[in-house]
Amino acid sequence: MTDRTIPVTCLDLEGVLIPEIWINLAEKTGIEDLKLTTRDIADYDELMKKRLALLDEHSLTLRDFQEVVATMEPLTGAREFLDWLRPHCEVIILSDTFREFAMPLIAKLGHPTIFCHSLIVDDDYRIQDYKLRQPDQKRKAVMALKSLNFRIFAAGDSYNDLSMLQEADAGIFFRPATKITQAYPQFPVTHEYAELQQKLSQIGGFPL
Amino acid sequence: MTDRTIPVTCLDLEGVLIPEIWINLAEKTGIEDLKLTTRDIADYDELMKKRLALLDEHSLTLRDFQEVVATMEPLTGAREFLDWLRPHCEVIILSDTFREFAMPLIAKLGHPTIFCHSLIVDDDYRIQDYKLRQPDQKRKAVMALKSLNFRIFAAGDSYNDLSMLQEADAGIFFRPATKITQAYPQFPVTHEYAELQQKLSQIGGFPL
Repeated sequence: MTDRTIPVTCLDLEGVLIPEIWINLAEKTGIEDLKLTTRDIADYDELMKKRLALLDEHSLTLRDFQEVVATMEPLTGAREFLDWLRPHCEVIILSDTFREFAMPLIAKLGHPTIFCHSLIVDDDYRIQDYKLRQPDQKRKAVMALKSLNFRIFAAGDSYNDLSMLQEADAGIFFRPATKITQAYPQFPVTHEYAELQQKLSQIGGFPL
Repeated sequence: MTDRTIPVTCLDLEGVLIPEIWINLAEKTGIEDLKLTTRDIADYDELMKKRLALLDEHSLTLRDFQEVVATMEPLTGAREFLDWLRPHCEVIILSDTFREFAMPLIAKLGHPTIFCHSLIVDDDYRIQDYKLRQPDQKRKAVMALKSLNFRIFAAGDSYNDLSMLQEADAGIFFRPATKITQAYPQFPVTHEYAELQQKLSQIGGFPL
């Protein structure tokens, strides 16, 4: 018997559809410490405070981010992957990035819906603070969508995707670090969009 | 103090962004009774059973719907309205239509996310039954999005939009019947996309 429940696919953004924004800023500015991630500083709030202090120290504003982001493109094949997926199910991007950084790249992806966080920026475009929409937002979004009687597929690459993959009806790794796949062998691992399509097609019954 | 909560705008589909699909089918096939709506038969289940019986009687399948929908276009200005709105907030369409009818028009609107219902179709494309994703789905979707700490704006034209307009932080009528606006004077009334843009821009602080 076919499961006729309408599926929603939840996708991580950075590393799955676009490159890492902070890494790109670090490379363009030469500020090595902007490459630090939650792998280096486990506490996200501590990490973000460090990043904002670095921005301040180097007088970098939202404008500088926007200039960097304007030069970035989605990962090769990401747009085509989304264009394939969107007629077959609903797609919602669940990301711990900030709207103010991400929107130009979201436009280049064809404006999929994104649930993420936001920045508090003053009149001179200085980033004063950040505002997490809610803690553990990826898990909560999946739970909310399930309460609306959707079936949830999810794909992500990193630790902050685990709660989303676990809460989903089917979770898939896309281009993860080897270490995380060893710790969570229950999630199939994909590296190319063609593989991810194959896997989603299999679980969702979508034509390839 | 600016409200920095990320907004989601929930929009009804038929009558707000695209023409009424059943009315179009009635006109193309000449079957007058397919024009019946919840204004004629208040009970939705009774109405849908009547519609499915009519389809059966006239040997109309999902293919016929799809042929009709293929000739339809979004309402004039709808795509431009959405293209204006989508960079400023998230947009989710809340509709009591069925995916199998709506998707070609959703594609023409640039693939916004849509929460709606689905049909049960046999191998010969005969519509056997319909499956409501959940009762009172528009209200429940707004509640779920609010639980994710979004601020909700909503626009609709008809009785099945009332729960969504009531549950939202700001509800707006778009091209409603006069009768409903008299019964629910708390919702501002708009007739053109420019007016709806103006209203959304006002409440959301979006640049026009």
